[in-house]
Amino acid sequence: MSTKANPVLVNTLRGDLVECQHRGAIAICDPKGRIVESLGDIDALVYPRSSIKPLQALPLVETGAADHFQLSNAELALACASHGAEPAHTDTISRWLARIDLDDESLECGAHAPGHIASAEKLLLDHRQPRRLHNNCSGKHTGMLTAAKFLQEDTRGYIDRDHPAQQRWMDAVGDMADLDMRQLPWCYDGCGIPVIAMPLVATATAFARFGTPDDLPAKRAAAAHRLAQAIAAEPFMVAGSGSLPTEVMQLAGLRILIKSGAEGFYAAALPEQGLGIALKIDDGQAEASEVALLATLNHLGVLHRDELAALSSRCRIPISNTLGVVTGHHQAASIWE
Amino acid sequence: MSTKANPVLVNTLRGDLVECQHRGAIAICDPKGRIVESLGDIDALVYPRSSIKPLQALPLVETGAADHFQLSNAELALACASHGAEPAHTDTISRWLARIDLDDESLECGAHAPGHIASAEKLLLDHRQPRRLHNNCSGKHTGMLTAAKFLQEDTRGYIDRDHPAQQRWMDAVGDMADLDMRQLPWCYDGCGIPVIAMPLVATATAFARFGTPDDLPAKRAAAAHRLAQAIAAEPFMVAGSGSLPTEVMQLAGLRILIKSGAEGFYAAALPEQGLGIALKIDDGQAEASEVALLATLNHLGVLHRDELAALSSRCRIPISNTLGVVTGHHQAASIWE
Repeated sequence: MSTKANPVLVNTLRGDLVECQHRGAIAICDPKGRIVESLGDIDALVYPRSSIKPLQALPLVETGAADHFQLSNAELALACASHGAEPAHTDTISRWLARIDLDDESLECGAHAPGHIASAEKLLLDHRQPRRLHNNCSGKHTGMLTAAKFLQEDTRGYIDRDHPAQQRWMDAVGDMADLDMRQLPWCYDGCGIPVIAMPLVATATAFARFGTPDDLPAKRAAAAHRLAQAIAAEPFMVAGSGSLPTEVMQLAGLRILIKSGAEGFYAAALPEQGLGIALKIDDGQAEASEVALLATLNHLGVLHRDELAALSSRCRIPISNTLGVVTGHHQAASIWE
Repeated sequence: MSTKANPVLVNTLRGDLVECQHRGAIAICDPKGRIVESLGDIDALVYPRSSIKPLQALPLVETGAADHFQLSNAELALACASHGAEPAHTDTISRWLARIDLDDESLECGAHAPGHIASAEKLLLDHRQPRRLHNNCSGKHTGMLTAAKFLQEDTRGYIDRDHPAQQRWMDAVGDMADLDMRQLPWCYDGCGIPVIAMPLVATATAFARFGTPDDLPAKRAAAAHRLAQAIAAEPFMVAGSGSLPTEVMQLAGLRILIKSGAEGFYAAALPEQGLGIALKIDDGQAEASEVALLATLNHLGVLHRDELAALSSRCRIPISNTLGVVTGHHQAASIWE
């Protein structure tokens, strides 16, 4: 992360006063890696976290595993997902795991309670413990297992940095972002696989190429296109009820592909404009990353009037107190003016 | 909030890399309002939120209501509390409300689920809805009702800005902070009473006077002393299981009085040193406010060696992933070096 102070992207107001500030950086790039617009330090190394799951899923298609196992759009979307572990998510992944002769126990991510609150409460009321299947990354893991299974690799230890399942996405993401992923700082992600820090400008470029893959090798372009189609066709599977990615893609389909990452990260591809976006809120706040993303999409003119109307309470998020009184808002600073 | 960039107070590391930064400001003052040390913009107006509850409780004692109703240390501590709605909290407040011929329905704060996770889960498992009693501010509200009842005021509408219950604390806090509270920006707090923005330097000064009230008028000094004694005697009642205020005051007693506020605020009084502290994390993150507070207490030399040892995982908070692997830490930047 930059040692310089990035600009304030989002303010949290209470009454007329700014109660909290959220700084950050945004890169908007084209598929040639040219910076179209930017704010803040877009060269600093930042973990993209789950935002790059669509890029990490490229080998699932490119290896032939997706064809071999006849993966549906829903399954491909889940491979790119941070899902809320709603029944439709976990049921689909369970059946998918069974089809590749594996089960919940084959997943090497840890268990955590469903991100979808009602699903978490249901689990508690049923006196059931969260399983690995409920991990928001279980679709990504199942995708990695599927490619490993297809290639007849030992699936045990597939989360280890040296396992081909991890090496494959490092190669793919490195190609897409013009980076040598093995030379960059890394650590473990929430789900146990490696997470590698990248400059925002590289992540934005990779997403521009993902959404507008015309200049990529044919096999890569076909894989990117297939994943993008799957995400747009099954936006619920990429995140879930009440989430921004699901709502935006339910409205805009293939025109606006967005993926959230932990700690205030967002990546987006705009296929019609040939643009990729990567943004990071320095302090990691999720609401601020959503507001900053929507302000950027609006600035680029890609949200239609009816979409903007439908998303109005997400562009400027009201904050209510325990009496239901709206006391303030999360709202974008004048970042693109 | 300041338009200038405050310094980075706390970093969130993943591996060796900073994943998130938390900026903010800290004021350390003496009872005369002199700035002993500071970081960042301590003159900007910031909502202190629940941090000033100990100051807001002064009229409860000064009016004679606390004596009249023979309030216990536990009840006085609850009047100053942001409690987790554990059974000991809600049971004590229920009995207190009954003693003043009121009940949960007399509280005008909204209901919210207990902050203490196990208590919230218990409520869910019992198929019970959160009540106003579970609001973390229900002790403060009961304190306000107690003074109003003692003074034979109409308790209905006691949360309104114009009600004597609100005017009383504005006078007391204004006196303690050398501010005209009615001239400052205000809005509604989470629990529905007014929240008024104050400079950090004023909040720190008020806390210095609260902890070291020697130069205050005798009645005010006695009230501050009684509340401080109650908080130190009943640290569980001020917050609850697993919370920083409870743990620090269980260790240090009357030597270190601390009170958290929403959106990254902390206030503290150090009676032996004659100092008050007020700090705000710009982005509102609670963990960062705790780390910054402990770094400041440590810098001031007020934590004994055994206390530091007991608090080590709070001074540098480990972050674990779903597999239980420690992937990083919330840790103080080199703020006081």
